[in-house]
Amino acid sequence: MAEPLTEPTANANSARDARRAIRAGRHRGHTAGLAHGYVQGNLCILPLEYATEFAAYCQRNPKPCPLIGMSAPGDPRLPALAQDLDIRTDVPCYRVFRDGKLDAEPTDIRDLWRDDLVSFVLGCSFSFEQALMADGVALRHVERGENVAMYKTNIETVPAGHFSGKLVVSMRPLVPAQAIRAVQITSRFPNVHGAPVHIGLPELIGIEDLEAPFAGDAPHMREDEIPVFWACGVTPQIAIEQARPALCITHKPGAMVITDVLNTSLAVL
Amino acid sequence: MAEPLTEPTANANSARDARRAIRAGRHRGHTAGLAHGYVQGNLCILPLEYATEFAAYCQRNPKPCPLIGMSAPGDPRLPALAQDLDIRTDVPCYRVFRDGKLDAEPTDIRDLWRDDLVSFVLGCSFSFEQALMADGVALRHVERGENVAMYKTNIETVPAGHFSGKLVVSMRPLVPAQAIRAVQITSRFPNVHGAPVHIGLPELIGIEDLEAPFAGDAPHMREDEIPVFWACGVTPQIAIEQARPALCITHKPGAMVITDVLNTSLAVL
Repeated sequence: MAEPLTEPTANANSARDARRAIRAGRHRGHTAGLAHGYVQGNLCILPLEYATEFAAYCQRNPKPCPLIGMSAPGDPRLPALAQDLDIRTDVPCYRVFRDGKLDAEPTDIRDLWRDDLVSFVLGCSFSFEQALMADGVALRHVERGENVAMYKTNIETVPAGHFSGKLVVSMRPLVPAQAIRAVQITSRFPNVHGAPVHIGLPELIGIEDLEAPFAGDAPHMREDEIPVFWACGVTPQIAIEQARPALCITHKPGAMVITDVLNTSLAVL
Repeated sequence: MAEPLTEPTANANSARDARRAIRAGRHRGHTAGLAHGYVQGNLCILPLEYATEFAAYCQRNPKPCPLIGMSAPGDPRLPALAQDLDIRTDVPCYRVFRDGKLDAEPTDIRDLWRDDLVSFVLGCSFSFEQALMADGVALRHVERGENVAMYKTNIETVPAGHFSGKLVVSMRPLVPAQAIRAVQITSRFPNVHGAPVHIGLPELIGIEDLEAPFAGDAPHMREDEIPVFWACGVTPQIAIEQARPALCITHKPGAMVITDVLNTSLAVL
């Protein structure tokens, strides 16, 4: 892993500069903290034969799968997200799945590119977390430098063709007044998971032990906090694992697609 | 008490017709269910010497004391709420407090009217409850035909002169998804108490037993529900009791000021 980029305060070139550094092989790690203020997205590249079904899966499950970009078949560009974006080179590290199994973790996928590949970029919680923190809502996992706690629920997503599976949620412990404020703030951001899907009472959605998450770090709940659950971008990854497409390329977790879209521009209000 | 008015479906004249019936002495009871769709308000009439302090108390505590109308001294009209409204005759039943003690419950206060009296009308939760029910959020106390549960919290309101006291909250038990929806819906209505002030964990705000409310009926919580707390219009009544003004005239609980303002027009979004 190369040394992390030095990140100045938010500026108009920081997203493009980050993509350039990644494209040139100068940044291979996580993108958290890079290009402050700009939307980062989850990536999923599928052959055309799966693309329509996956688009339908996203359309039917907008809270876990908020689609913010979709390419034309074979076109590695997504100009609506960034004019210079080349999805084959601009992600620090990829994961290549064949028949649902992890096959490789390349840092460039130009040699794998095909005319039938369709790229999907999904919004991620980084955007709404920035809005929460900007409003003074403290996030435990950010303060601790850990990953947010994630849980597999007993809630079925709406299937589409080969794609189906349980809803995965992320959970942030908040004191009651901040939980209410967090509902208000994240309701403004439907393209990055939006409002919580559940609050309090984890057992009602099939979560037995909050301190034993399915992924991420234990949340370290305090007695004056309630658990607040948001739909999580890991949900479509599980749906893809179950669908076992012949080929699927994703970003490596934490190494996201950096766009030129401002987080604040996603707010519907 | 006269027979309740027959209430047709919402129509443009129903608020004015209700006021006419009250003014003519043909309706003396509760106003719940009358003039469907129109804002009903809490009433507080104070001598001028207390009016500035009470206006400041409302301004400093907008969640429990959302001011939707304030008259000129001595003027019994509030034309912004309804052109024909006469605050001396248009409330089914009043309460007259002298030095903080209940003195009378007249149905007309024309003989008590003075040139120095100022009327305050505060928004009430009827308006946001209508918005919740219109969106399919079921309210237990409405279904049971009971009064909402109210609790005195350990939260101090912001004092203003003689007026101070603890925040009173109303509580509605909701399943988690509807609790989230209720935060969204009531956030649109800041003039009728707005978003909840607390959710879950009643002990954090000094409530020991949810089934033993300070006022109203027991809430009959179910295991799949969480308690959602809103600031309550009883808060200023307690502040007034403590201030012991020489004269104060309020509505009798449940017998509200009926306005020509549509509930939906209070939505800020």
